Amino acid sequence: MKDFCVADLNATVSLNGFPCKPVAEVTSDDFFFDGLSKEGNTDNPFGFAVAQGNVLSFPGLNTLGISMNRVDLAPGGINAPHSHPRATESIVVIKGKVLVGFVSTSNVYFYKVLTVGQMFVIPRGLIHFQYNVGHSKAILLTAFNSQLPGAVIVSRTLFASNPPIPNQILTKTFRVDDDVINSIKSKFA
Amino acid sequence: MKDFCVADLNATVSLNGFPCKPVAEVTSDDFFFDGLSKEGNTDNPFGFAVAQGNVLSFPGLNTLGISMNRVDLAPGGINAPHSHPRATESIVVIKGKVLVGFVSTSNVYFYKVLTVGQMFVIPRGLIHFQYNVGHSKAILLTAFNSQLPGAVIVSRTLFASNPPIPNQILTKTFRVDDDVINSIKSKFA
Amino acid sequence: MKDFCVADLNATVSLNGFPCKPVAEVTSDDFFFDGLSKEGNTDNPFGFAVAQGNVLSFPGLNTLGISMNRVDLAPGGINAPHSHPRATESIVVIKGKVLVGFVSTSNVYFYKVLTVGQMFVIPRGLIHFQYNVGHSKAILLTAFNSQLPGAVIVSRTLFASNPPIPNQILTKTFRVDDDVINSIKSKFA
Amino acid sequence: MKDFCVADLNATVSLNGFPCKPVAEVTSDDFFFDGLSKEGNTDNPFGFAVAQGNVLSFPGLNTLGISMNRVDLAPGGINAPHSHPRATESIVVIKGKVLVGFVSTSNVYFYKVLTVGQMFVIPRGLIHFQYNVGHSKAILLTAFNSQLPGAVIVSRTLFASNPPIPNQILTKTFRVDDDVINSIKSKFA
Amino acid sequence: MKDFCVADLNATVSLNGFPCKPVAEVTSDDFFFDGLSKEGNTDNPFGFAVAQGNVLSFPGLNTLGISMNRVDLAPGGINAPHSHPRATESIVVIKGKVLVGFVSTSNVYFYKVLTVGQMFVIPRGLIHFQYNVGHSKAILLTAFNSQLPGAVIVSRTLFASNPPIPNQILTKTFRVDDDVINSIKSKFA
Amino acid sequence: MKDFCVADLNATVSLNGFPCKPVAEVTSDDFFFDGLSKEGNTDNPFGFAVAQGNVLSFPGLNTLGISMNRVDLAPGGINAPHSHPRATESIVVIKGKVLVGFVSTSNVYFYKVLTVGQMFVIPRGLIHFQYNVGHSKAILLTAFNSQLPGAVIVSRTLFASNPPIPNQILTKTFRVDDDVINSIKSKFA
Repeated sequence: MKDFCVADLNATVSLNGFPCKPVAEVTSDDFFFDGLSKEGNTDNPFGFAVAQGNVLSFPGLNTLGISMNRVDLAPGGINAPHSHPRATESIVVIKGKVLVGFVSTSNVYFYKVLTVGQMFVIPRGLIHFQYNVGHSKAILLTAFNSQLPGAVIVSRTLFASNPPIPNQILTKTFRVDDDVINSIKSKFA
Repeated sequence: MKDFCVADLNATVSLNGFPCKPVAEVTSDDFFFDGLSKEGNTDNPFGFAVAQGNVLSFPGLNTLGISMNRVDLAPGGINAPHSHPRATESIVVIKGKVLVGFVSTSNVYFYKVLTVGQMFVIPRGLIHFQYNVGHSKAILLTAFNSQLPGAVIVSRTLFASNPPIPNQILTKTFRVDDDVINSIKSKFA
Repeated sequence: MKDFCVADLNATVSLNGFPCKPVAEVTSDDFFFDGLSKEGNTDNPFGFAVAQGNVLSFPGLNTLGISMNRVDLAPGGINAPHSHPRATESIVVIKGKVLVGFVSTSNVYFYKVLTVGQMFVIPRGLIHFQYNVGHSKAILLTAFNSQLPGAVIVSRTLFASNPPIPNQILTKTFRVDDDVINSIKSKFA
Repeated sequence: MKDFCVADLNATVSLNGFPCKPVAEVTSDDFFFDGLSKEGNTDNPFGFAVAQGNVLSFPGLNTLGISMNRVDLAPGGINAPHSHPRATESIVVIKGKVLVGFVSTSNVYFYKVLTVGQMFVIPRGLIHFQYNVGHSKAILLTAFNSQLPGAVIVSRTLFASNPPIPNQILTKTFRVDDDVINSIKSKFA
Repeated sequence: MKDFCVADLNATVSLNGFPCKPVAEVTSDDFFFDGLSKEGNTDNPFGFAVAQGNVLSFPGLNTLGISMNRVDLAPGGINAPHSHPRATESIVVIKGKVLVGFVSTSNVYFYKVLTVGQMFVIPRGLIHFQYNVGHSKAILLTAFNSQLPGAVIVSRTLFASNPPIPNQILTKTFRVDDDVINSIKSKFA
Repeated sequence: MKDFCVADLNATVSLNGFPCKPVAEVTSDDFFFDGLSKEGNTDNPFGFAVAQGNVLSFPGLNTLGISMNRVDLAPGGINAPHSHPRATESIVVIKGKVLVGFVSTSNVYFYKVLTVGQMFVIPRGLIHFQYNVGHSKAILLTAFNSQLPGAVIVSRTLFASNPPIPNQILTKTFRVDDDVINSIKSKFA
């Protein structure tokens, strides 16, 4: 209802969203974020890095309903299947060649290989992924219509939660035996 | 903006939501739904059945922002991990003893065993499940703050979409080899 | 914007909604509510009891946009005409036989006698009631797309407010004389 | 999502809201309404008249989320207790002296006598009324944050619906006998 | 989510919107505002005065999504081109004869001369103005579907901001030289 | 309420938003847009080009609440002061060095010079601009939390509308004489 409400991340009161920094202390720097300009470290099993420009890192976004991420993918790297519980996502490739795909609730898999400057959209809450199918590093910019879209990463959610989801749930879910579940869990330990 | 807009499911125009049945044709029956009163058939590998009282089955819900489901679970039956992209869910156990759980985006697993009359809430878009831990059949009523919450069922989404998600995506996601992926896919074929 | 914001009902700051309990103190019990499992006391002139699972009794619902009530009705008992200023309501009968009805702003009365498992929907803000037309006790579960739907009970609002609405307003409203108004007011004193 | 969507009130498709008139046919007159400038006829038992500037009379309001009414009250005239299911209302007195009041869901009656130029606000969905306490005609302008706020007029809803609400509901509601109910119903027949 | 949340304008916590005054301290006066009843002082270069009934002056509007202004215009006076970033506006002329106009994003200018009791609507976010074309003082009531619509006054925004927008931006914008920009800036100093 | 509703831009029914393409005809290409990959032609007085990825060019965005633009600026080029009536904007520089600024409704000018990968946010409805302060071409990606944010370009709105805004409005607005207004109007003819 105000023009802006720069988040006071250190406020003693916890809200859904954040209280505002006093207007008198707001400067141009509050609307600026430099966290997407650096190359991410993709030296991990997924060949993946993400820098998040959401309200937690960029307090000026508070109450404004938008955020952006930078995703770096090594060749063969993957931003593994996940969903955003509170946002639609649009994706633009800045560098490289990337397969992006999502599955609808009617179980249809929609996908496309994108090159530089091409755009794709992932409807709110659906499971999707990005996979570098090129021979060099890829960079994507993603935009969300939420200041904090959240990410439900399927593999981590099911196999690495704290505390763990009991094996009997997972064996029934995937119709496999305990060995398979334990094996996957061990990778995410 | 009107009191109601009973869905005309056969309209030639397709909207996000549905056009309205002419007001002059609306009767009390349009606000009534009898699809939750019958026992579901749980004779399947998951010991699970769901009856959905959403806008597709109950057109009177159109534009009203609410819907309800009935879930039947055989002993040991599971409503496998899934998320609703467009709704928070509240659950009340009508019969039996049921473990319900969800995982937050911070990867914390919250869960509870519910008995008759007890209530649990699943925040919008998070992966959750219901598992009958009692010795007899269980029945749950679930309510959603959407007329069509949608369901992203994790196993079906990843292993049984049409067309299929390529194996290389799934092996990287779960850090397993093709055999495991093929084995799971075969169960959902 | 966060996954959840369990209400801190004792916060010194008053909001529309509630501040959040610190995330580190949130446990599974915060998403659980046991207030709907007990039979209500219907030993009153209306043969009516309600247990409310809204944010005031179930703080985990804060910011999630959903709540549920249990209504107990003795034979002949009534949940008297009322409206919810902030929610659509869906109703499922758990036990008994209940007449439910609402009136639209076009002054049409829609109604239905429901038996176990049957569902009815009351559009946002319209006056409605539930009346036990069976020979035994009735139980209903109602769901709302608001964490605090509110209830405007017509009789109480007009005849038992604090301070009272002046008689001249009420005699003009119902086109009756002071005696009728005083008589009704005396019942709600 | 567009600047405007002037309602096509004669469209064959019925929506919640209205389809848009083709942009090429939109003129300045579509954003203009002259229905509030004339004195209303208050020659009726309530000494009351209302002119409604909502989407049904002023199609340019479609999708814009606002509307305004003019209320005329003869001396002693009343805009009887009612609620708007889809809007907050603000009131400004243009002429005369008017008692305005509403009752909260906590059953508190808030009220004020307003003279020319004074403003009062009625929160969404609460029962309220306006009563001319001056010696001459009164005029009010009311604004709503909905293009079609709707009005649930308590007396008409309960005593003059079509079909009628059964007497047994109403005798239990107001704790009076059939004679009182029949007497009131006869006034609204 | 509550009936109301009267703004506590002096709270130590700053929100987008305001914390609520304790309910126990809320009185009828909190829903009342007398700031629109007095004539505005139009003795200035624009022949213009505005009295704002928004949440900052009328704390009872907090969370209710509505506000109203009174505009006074001397003969030839203007409420200069501006937009409201957070609201649609509806206008009713209380006295006089006023030209109102707005320009759509398709660059079409819609306008009308209004006399007493006539209404016009300005869609959200579009630039508009009001100009007294009569021979006597004019008064308008304007309503907004926001408790704090904000106003972006074009001339003040571009030529009198603090710090100033550099001349090179403005000369390029209007395709004029520095002298014109400096001349306009001097008028708004 | 559905996963998606790909716009049928040729539908005979006009809505605020668009009807949906039949689901059976939706393919992966509906979620893909290639209009941002090509260099824009900045050979014009503003040294400016914009490619818009909104619902009109990318029908898959319909109902999803997001869109993205590409802005090309020649050295010294400007995206002249404008506002988006329906969206917050976030900006990332892809190439070059760009001054971005906006003015709040409190008349404070916030600004920053951005280089590659840096991000800035413009709150909903405020007037802002982008100006290439580097020696080579600049490219920006902008994201909006609306499928059709609209653009109110100040100079075009005031000096080049159809029909034109009368000079007397503009001379009073900027406190200049007719010659200045006519001179500016001639540049935008």
